[in-house]
Amino acid sequence: MISIALLGFGCVGSGTAEVLTENKKLIESRLGCEYQIKYILDLRDFPDSPFGSLVVHDFNTILNDPEVSVVAEMMGGSHPAYDFTKACLEAGKSVVTSNKEVVAKFGVELCEIAAQKGVRYMFEASVGGGIPIIRPMMTDLASNKINKINGILNGTTNYILTSMRDDGKSFDEALGEAQKLGYAEANPAADVEGTDAARKTVILGAIATGKLVSPDAIYKEGITKIELDDVELAQTLGYSIKLIGHAEEKDGKLLALVSPMAVPTSNPLSRIDDVFNGILVNANMVGEVMFYGPGAGKLPTASAVVADIVDIIAKREVAPTPVGWVNAAAEDLADVADYSCPRLVIVEEDGKKSAYVTDEMTEAEAKTLKAKAVYRVL
Amino acid sequence: MISIALLGFGCVGSGTAEVLTENKKLIESRLGCEYQIKYILDLRDFPDSPFGSLVVHDFNTILNDPEVSVVAEMMGGSHPAYDFTKACLEAGKSVVTSNKEVVAKFGVELCEIAAQKGVRYMFEASVGGGIPIIRPMMTDLASNKINKINGILNGTTNYILTSMRDDGKSFDEALGEAQKLGYAEANPAADVEGTDAARKTVILGAIATGKLVSPDAIYKEGITKIELDDVELAQTLGYSIKLIGHAEEKDGKLLALVSPMAVPTSNPLSRIDDVFNGILVNANMVGEVMFYGPGAGKLPTASAVVADIVDIIAKREVAPTPVGWVNAAAEDLADVADYSCPRLVIVEEDGKKSAYVTDEMTEAEAKTLKAKAVYRVL
Repeated sequence: MISIALLGFGCVGSGTAEVLTENKKLIESRLGCEYQIKYILDLRDFPDSPFGSLVVHDFNTILNDPEVSVVAEMMGGSHPAYDFTKACLEAGKSVVTSNKEVVAKFGVELCEIAAQKGVRYMFEASVGGGIPIIRPMMTDLASNKINKINGILNGTTNYILTSMRDDGKSFDEALGEAQKLGYAEANPAADVEGTDAARKTVILGAIATGKLVSPDAIYKEGITKIELDDVELAQTLGYSIKLIGHAEEKDGKLLALVSPMAVPTSNPLSRIDDVFNGILVNANMVGEVMFYGPGAGKLPTASAVVADIVDIIAKREVAPTPVGWVNAAAEDLADVADYSCPRLVIVEEDGKKSAYVTDEMTEAEAKTLKAKAVYRVL
Repeated sequence: MISIALLGFGCVGSGTAEVLTENKKLIESRLGCEYQIKYILDLRDFPDSPFGSLVVHDFNTILNDPEVSVVAEMMGGSHPAYDFTKACLEAGKSVVTSNKEVVAKFGVELCEIAAQKGVRYMFEASVGGGIPIIRPMMTDLASNKINKINGILNGTTNYILTSMRDDGKSFDEALGEAQKLGYAEANPAADVEGTDAARKTVILGAIATGKLVSPDAIYKEGITKIELDDVELAQTLGYSIKLIGHAEEKDGKLLALVSPMAVPTSNPLSRIDDVFNGILVNANMVGEVMFYGPGAGKLPTASAVVADIVDIIAKREVAPTPVGWVNAAAEDLADVADYSCPRLVIVEEDGKKSAYVTDEMTEAEAKTLKAKAVYRVL
């Protein structure tokens, strides 16, 4: 019997309890062994939940119980999530997480501790919610050098941009609607300013290159300044404006950025709409593959958390392969000024806006354009 | 040093040699061990190929060499591919394959032999070419019950249907063009009559349900009777006609079929165009996820073959998890008459065609419709 502890009983935490319970028979038959949720750590009590009796308030109950071999951290935020994760790994427990903030900031250290202790630190749910992306990149694309990743990694902003394009809403109107529907938080900054997408971008960049860069160190532009006119003009030229997380290896350096981009209709990312995410991976042998699905949400994200738990249990007698990331040094990072692409240019003359698309140009050249707005073209 | 043998040096076989060679350093660093291609079995000689010196004509050279622990079968056709695969597995060698015909017909027996011998039989490349689909379904979706799969699984027919829709070509014109471009064979029957898609559909059905049904036993309809008018009328109503492989569990039984279907624009499969494949998986926790990419081609398919080789080498000291499929009995199969969906109906009056979409109805009800053509709606 494998004993699992859940840290956090919010949206993803309660979803994880549900997946582990609802599909228990099926998962146990696949694993050939039984499991139980032994503890759920939360500050609150949940007297009405069927899982209420498992709730504990003291992390040490979990840490000091040698029966608990797998811990799922779904608390969000850096602290105490990072501290609890580190303590669990050091105590020889494997940890899975949906917490992109912790992976993006502390992934190198946590993977190292896991390797030293012979346990696993896994984070399929940290990028793309329920979409299989981390494990496929590490296994199915293990025969490839990954050249480039472009992803729609944030459902909230994608909902807003889709609503602007398809329903003619302004940014503010679309954001308000997203908040009403529960897709955006009361303080939407982490989403609309690209912080969330930046965290996911650096995780994907690390899988591609082995180098994890701080999300604070990459170029980042959100969607707050996008005007409805721009979205509509882009559409008349055959482009959808999407918030894209981009990572590529360029001359041995990692180039990563988050920015609204004009995506041509011919690119499958242009049709990833609403709250869905899509991640397009370009690799040297397979060419381009895309992974699409629900990038957030209780059960989809929990599905990915439990996939990692299942993987850990299935391989419990196998020595883990170390992830082997290093923190990117300043010289590992390409200058974003080297980012070269065509530009979709919005100009205004006599109060009338129009748009055109340029040939490929560098950031420096783009800055010399006389324009109301300039969008990178994917 | 791991020794690998390749069976077949055609398109996928030569691609596999290329991937193993081109990305050797990278793959070996990921694996932490070295490998070599020791033999390539083919009837022909390849004096001008850099791999020419590895070519052997006698299968027994490979079978009887205890150094060879991994064999990649890329011969196509049932025989001798099946016989060689069986002999290798019985000799304790793991086998990977891109051969959907062998997996669809003999998968249960071959997986059983592999399990008995403690080796692996893997077939990521048999469905969706380079697209990660088999392993993600078995690992990333291991926390889910898979309810339903709809896939565009054949690049040739998808190219033809895209060309009809976007370029206004007739079936015959589009097929001729596909042949000229090398996307369709001189005898295109296996593609246009749905045989290839049926093989892939039953493999996906087996992953979802554990039951492998013979591709000859499922309902199968190709694209040869689709008229350009139908494609154009469907488009005016917001549908793309696509050849869909469908598998679902229905009341404990497996319902599988291959048929042209009218796919609404809102479904991401409607925009999987040209020779690309896309597989939409509906699972009970994650909801819908889609995998997209090159469904055929030398290097993409080889990328998947090598991913399986890498997986086998990485896990060479780990006891394999048996695949555990069984052959579907007649009573395991749902009657296709139970397939219920709306229909896109093409009618002709006074020499003028028009189209409308019905409510959901069964196959039996659909047969009573007075129409020039009736398409299942996805």
